[in-house]
Amino acid sequence: MPESFDHKVESTLQRHGMLEKGDQVVVAISGGPDSVVLLHILHRLRIRWGITLIAAHLNHALRGQDSDEDATFVAEYAASLGLPCVMETADVKRYCKAQGCSIETGARDLRYTFLERVARTYNADKIATGHTADDQAETVLMRVIRGSGPDGLSGIRPVRDGWIIRPLLNVTRKEVTAYQATHKLSARFDATNTEQHMLRNKIRHHLLPLLQDEYNPKIQGALSRLADVMRVESNYLDWELEALTTQHIHPVNRDAVCIDLTSWQTIPVALRRRLIRQAVQGAGGRSTRLTYDHVERAQALFDAGHAGQILHLPDEIALERRKTTVLICRSTSEPYQIEMNIPGTTPIPNSDYYIMTEIVDISDSPKERPPSCVAFDVDVLPSQLLIRSRRPGDRMKPFGMNGTKTLKKLFNEWDIPRLMRDRVPVVTDGVHLLWVAGHRRGNQAPLSEQTRKVLIMQQVGRLASGRTDQ
Amino acid sequence: MPESFDHKVESTLQRHGMLEKGDQVVVAISGGPDSVVLLHILHRLRIRWGITLIAAHLNHALRGQDSDEDATFVAEYAASLGLPCVMETADVKRYCKAQGCSIETGARDLRYTFLERVARTYNADKIATGHTADDQAETVLMRVIRGSGPDGLSGIRPVRDGWIIRPLLNVTRKEVTAYQATHKLSARFDATNTEQHMLRNKIRHHLLPLLQDEYNPKIQGALSRLADVMRVESNYLDWELEALTTQHIHPVNRDAVCIDLTSWQTIPVALRRRLIRQAVQGAGGRSTRLTYDHVERAQALFDAGHAGQILHLPDEIALERRKTTVLICRSTSEPYQIEMNIPGTTPIPNSDYYIMTEIVDISDSPKERPPSCVAFDVDVLPSQLLIRSRRPGDRMKPFGMNGTKTLKKLFNEWDIPRLMRDRVPVVTDGVHLLWVAGHRRGNQAPLSEQTRKVLIMQQVGRLASGRTDQ
Repeated sequence: MPESFDHKVESTLQRHGMLEKGDQVVVAISGGPDSVVLLHILHRLRIRWGITLIAAHLNHALRGQDSDEDATFVAEYAASLGLPCVMETADVKRYCKAQGCSIETGARDLRYTFLERVARTYNADKIATGHTADDQAETVLMRVIRGSGPDGLSGIRPVRDGWIIRPLLNVTRKEVTAYQATHKLSARFDATNTEQHMLRNKIRHHLLPLLQDEYNPKIQGALSRLADVMRVESNYLDWELEALTTQHIHPVNRDAVCIDLTSWQTIPVALRRRLIRQAVQGAGGRSTRLTYDHVERAQALFDAGHAGQILHLPDEIALERRKTTVLICRSTSEPYQIEMNIPGTTPIPNSDYYIMTEIVDISDSPKERPPSCVAFDVDVLPSQLLIRSRRPGDRMKPFGMNGTKTLKKLFNEWDIPRLMRDRVPVVTDGVHLLWVAGHRRGNQAPLSEQTRKVLIMQQVGRLASGRTDQ
Repeated sequence: MPESFDHKVESTLQRHGMLEKGDQVVVAISGGPDSVVLLHILHRLRIRWGITLIAAHLNHALRGQDSDEDATFVAEYAASLGLPCVMETADVKRYCKAQGCSIETGARDLRYTFLERVARTYNADKIATGHTADDQAETVLMRVIRGSGPDGLSGIRPVRDGWIIRPLLNVTRKEVTAYQATHKLSARFDATNTEQHMLRNKIRHHLLPLLQDEYNPKIQGALSRLADVMRVESNYLDWELEALTTQHIHPVNRDAVCIDLTSWQTIPVALRRRLIRQAVQGAGGRSTRLTYDHVERAQALFDAGHAGQILHLPDEIALERRKTTVLICRSTSEPYQIEMNIPGTTPIPNSDYYIMTEIVDISDSPKERPPSCVAFDVDVLPSQLLIRSRRPGDRMKPFGMNGTKTLKKLFNEWDIPRLMRDRVPVVTDGVHLLWVAGHRRGNQAPLSEQTRKVLIMQQVGRLASGRTDQ
């Protein structure tokens, strides 16, 4: 006797701990058979499992009147079950244009944003979606074909982020249709599903049937099981990675981290790829934009790069190999020039630090100052000073030295990572470099016996230099 | 400029540490383009890498005269390079019939056995085979379709068992053909490659070209990279498993192991499947015969089985859930009956223990005996005793007790695993059970004041009872 549909769904709920007594569940419903069946079975099980339901439908408005009819159908269906139904219309095309993404990606983004908003608004505990074993098989196959690592082959997760649940993930579309017939449920037909240009639909309607007919009649089960094993193993490696992340990825500032080369050697090879992805995220990049080749090249930089070597990755992330570390940072190197508030606080663009200035009487000026502070004779300086990023040809006469040096040479001497040099704020009177913030002042406007008022500058917040070798 | 063929092969050799200076390498050569190119490039690199080569060809004799012509071609080709060539002919069909395996599997088995024999005979260090990136892609795709876990998706390993190496694994068949043309190398055409009934060939000639044309022009690279990542992660999990194996899989005897239920709870879920496969191997089964479902059911027995529950797996492996452990053993429960050597040693069939007997004067008989020994008045017993496995209805009058009990009841009282009961040797005079070896003697032929000669029986070797709960 084949296992009943109800039993299969309930054992999925059970096995993955999807529901708890008292849960309020937002059920995503498109109007297609999968979601209609999902809402129906959860409604039947609601007393037994002690849950309450809210239907939620996002009108993607991609198929004109058809889309509106879907919305009407969903509203009526939810009402027939006596359930509340939250409806909203999205402008998918505008979103996709703004984000530069495909219609499929855009629709999904907007749908999940909507569902999560509904869940938060109604203080719900879970969001249920109607993904089936067929969706799972399609996803895994699509990822194998497109080229994916272990994470991708994990496919659709039964539970995502702790609250998005997929109770139908172990029943096939065929079983859904049978259930639909048994319970005489009508559903809408989603016309976008037949557009052959979408990879998923091509896999659904051509590739999977072909593989099933000619290679393995049980291929869907095989792909589901693969996803299952991959998910568990991949989660485990990620869990091990967490400990390694704290241990090996050191924050430098808001969008830079570094990894010590000595500790790199101790990281198991299997986890190095994952750690690199993690570091990219730590620096503010998206690990999903990294290909296999990106990660391979990053590994090569760690294993056999030379000091000063730089690797550029997507999302403006760059890696720089240093003597004893590798710096991973977001290279947001927009040049800037702003006026300095005197006295007052000036935030440094694209960073989380700022420069504070004050003017004090020479008699109140402390003899000892912290290294982050520099002092000038204010009467010798113009009233307006500027803070800017470095420019080619910048030269400075460092305090206490004869002659000038190029800023480039000074940066080399101070061993500042190349990737960080655009971020070091420079204070200038328009002609001379008065101060390379956090590093060295120039020899302009020194305190002397004539000095009456002192201008004190201090860099506050995280260290700007990004001296990762300390 | 595309990377040169030589460079690609050399970086594969380098990256996986395939060759060391001084290595003697057996090169497998079928006569097809891949192996011809393999032998050619290794021959060109031999001085630079400090290696010596031996060609080795197994004539599978599956295509009559064609096969013989292959052999002649190979011999002449090796001779033209001035290399020794070891040739042998195999009877693949007979082997496959005997083993009940497919021609493809049989041919592979025989080929590797041959290659390893050649390597041992000539004291070689490595065996090189001509697998290409195309073979890799085909293998991975085949395993995805057939249904495989992470291990299977690791595909063809660049280095297997430390000495089988695949220097061409990162070049495509197309690149091999180009190299062949450049160096004007002739090669034989393997007709079995065009037989469409073989899954691999179907994938090679139909599925991969289809996927390449319609889904992803770079699919071969994608599948190779997948194998690469999977191999590294899978190896890492196996490495972690090694420590767990020692810690959690306890040998009971030659073909039985057990896992403690308390320690099971501490094993990461991701490693439990692998540990079960390991335990099956520890009990003498082949983990390759286990499907996903077998492993799932085994996990269920661990997680929620009831005491006494038994699960049968392939290779005559069975699992029995006990109170505090799960026993995994090979149920080679052939009934047997053999004559006991008195005095002397009698090996117990299908086991690694035996029963030793001796006859001593009552005056020499020690008062204290180890628990594995029992003593009888030899003059009261028939001269011929038997050792056999239990039979339905066996009863015994345990020493010191009134009345008989069924052996079944006694086994229950002694808490002997059901899977082990057929292995407990029983000594009988043909009518009574004299001794359940390792457990209890019956009340026949006790020592008395009339006793002159004592028959001492002892079970030697590993404990027969398989008392896993100790």
